[in-house]
Amino acid sequence: VALNSTAGLARLANASHPAAFHHIATHLETQRNQAFCSAATSVTILNALAGAGVDAPVDGFYAPYAYYTQRALFENACVRRAKTHVYRVNMSPKFLARGGATLEEWALYLSCFVGQAGVARHHADANENDANAFRVVVKATLADAPNAFIGVNFRRVEIGEAGGGHMRRVRIHAGPRTTAPIGAYDDAADAILVMDVSRYKYPPVWTPLRALHDAMLAVDEASGKSRGWVVV
Amino acid sequence: VALNSTAGLARLANASHPAAFHHIATHLETQRNQAFCSAATSVTILNALAGAGVDAPVDGFYAPYAYYTQRALFENACVRRAKTHVYRVNMSPKFLARGGATLEEWALYLSCFVGQAGVARHHADANENDANAFRVVVKATLADAPNAFIGVNFRRVEIGEAGGGHMRRVRIHAGPRTTAPIGAYDDAADAILVMDVSRYKYPPVWTPLRALHDAMLAVDEASGKSRGWVVV
Repeated sequence: VALNSTAGLARLANASHPAAFHHIATHLETQRNQAFCSAATSVTILNALAGAGVDAPVDGFYAPYAYYTQRALFENACVRRAKTHVYRVNMSPKFLARGGATLEEWALYLSCFVGQAGVARHHADANENDANAFRVVVKATLADAPNAFIGVNFRRVEIGEAGGGHMRRVRIHAGPRTTAPIGAYDDAADAILVMDVSRYKYPPVWTPLRALHDAMLAVDEASGKSRGWVVV
Repeated sequence: VALNSTAGLARLANASHPAAFHHIATHLETQRNQAFCSAATSVTILNALAGAGVDAPVDGFYAPYAYYTQRALFENACVRRAKTHVYRVNMSPKFLARGGATLEEWALYLSCFVGQAGVARHHADANENDANAFRVVVKATLADAPNAFIGVNFRRVEIGEAGGGHMRRVRIHAGPRTTAPIGAYDDAADAILVMDVSRYKYPPVWTPLRALHDAMLAVDEASGKSRGWVVV
């Protein structure tokens, strides 16, 4: 169910957990290129956390204003020291552009930013946490917005979208995968509003929670593990 | 009143003209640099108009998917032929980066895209159209969303924001000025939700319609005329 439909808007208006939506929507970024879904998701969530005391860096394009950008993210010294899971090379825009990040790689570079201001962070593999556990985390996190947000790393095909799109041109990492922030949850429909950062392809969409969990269960060929979620 | 406040969200939930909001929010772009407010506003509105039959170009970064970007906007042949008002030179990213666009320059390059699919377009100077006329246009346009949207070109100081920001570094065009899409209108408060594309500085904010009209009345030093609005 597309958000921009009568049913989609009605579901948001009556959702049991709508509070993250306006914070995510206000800062939602289009990924810079077809492999930067994790970067755009990170930037969206980190900017949404400004009210929770997460300081942003100053990107030269916007000086003197502080704002997370997909460029400034990788100028961070901690990120540049982070060893990627697959190749044991350092994280960089070039590495990410080749094939995107696995769940672990994403959580690794994200942890450079969310240690500050007492903001907790954890990531979870879907195969170690079933749909019921995921639902509990979704509800708890969205109830805590704007002090916490949640993002997911999943395979598109399980939620009815064309597979992996942005991974077709590069085969180094293999495994179509995407990353997106969650905007809302509705108990009655047991559905999650996924706010895709591939805005050139997919509008925000209500997805059954179980379908999204299935989409996270799919093994990522690059890591040999399932996908999963990150709570920031 | 910030959108991300209890009062701001309540106003949106009960607004008399809320229909444009989700379309604009879904595609809201951060301006690429501090002079690209008109470009980011154009891209946001043009992408929101996809459902109304406005075809997007394919930016190489997102091929094969079609989506307006602040880069692809200026690769358009019609835009590259457009003579800017002030210098009688052709419109280009370089021209825009020097000092942004006046209302006329913005309307000129925007007209390259909105002639298609029968989408009407007009722009209006604030000093030729009083606040009552503006209110009529706002209501009619927002009632027609997602087939029509409205953007404003204004001076920040009148709506209580720090003046001009992005114009401080460049003095060629002079005159602090910004451009932004409108997300909603509420009759009861007579207020407009301005969705700023300088997301590194300003969140979406409810602004009294009369203050916004005053902000459009201010003469733009570059053109010698008032600012105003564009309906797409």
